Amino acid sequence: MSFREILKKVVSDVDGAIGAVLMGYDGISIDDFIQEDLSDDIQLLAVEYTSIIKEVRRAVEVLKTGQMEELSLATDQSRIVIRIVNEDFFVLLALSADGNFGKARYLLKRSVPLLREAL
Amino acid sequence: MSFREILKKVVSDVDGAIGAVLMGYDGISIDDFIQEDLSDDIQLLAVEYTSIIKEVRRAVEVLKTGQMEELSLATDQSRIVIRIVNEDFFVLLALSADGNFGKARYLLKRSVPLLREAL
Repeated sequence: MSFREILKKVVSDVDGAIGAVLMGYDGISIDDFIQEDLSDDIQLLAVEYTSIIKEVRRAVEVLKTGQMEELSLATDQSRIVIRIVNEDFFVLLALSADGNFGKARYLLKRSVPLLREAL
Repeated sequence: MSFREILKKVVSDVDGAIGAVLMGYDGISIDDFIQEDLSDDIQLLAVEYTSIIKEVRRAVEVLKTGQMEELSLATDQSRIVIRIVNEDFFVLLALSADGNFGKARYLLKRSVPLLREAL
């Protein structure tokens, strides 16, 4: 499967999912699948989160609390789930506030081995 | 209930919970309840996460994706759930990697109105 097919499958199978982006730590997106006209918003979100993830990774290293696997964020309007793919890439899934957060986490986790294989 | 009683109740009711800290954005903890001899680790964790949460809040404001409510982080060794209490404070709950993450999120969310009342 291509990156886009893997991302599309996750977005299609999660209620309330808006889009998913495979992203490099250098802030450049590799591929994405985004519903409707939200592409610019999700791309901006992914870039903005790149610096946050770097910061969190640094903190995790300082604290020696193991290998970072997942980061999630909820606001009153949206949910973001981020899963580390490898040293260079992460995948970000954006959901509406009433989206299925549990399924989002589960399917994003399951997509990681597929993304690694496709890289 | 006192802060400590509220935090103790959450930690006691979640399988795998290690400790909870009520923390100011200035990096000073107000109160905590931490199991056994892990006090220094959890305090350090809370201080380290203060800068991350500030960073995330700033990103959320930039992106105009609503009011930040919750941040969670999973490593292969631990889980952290953070819930915003108000403009000045947040509450952090640390769990082991096999702890009950769903219940942690639920009970931490429920503790927020109690903490607001006690502040």
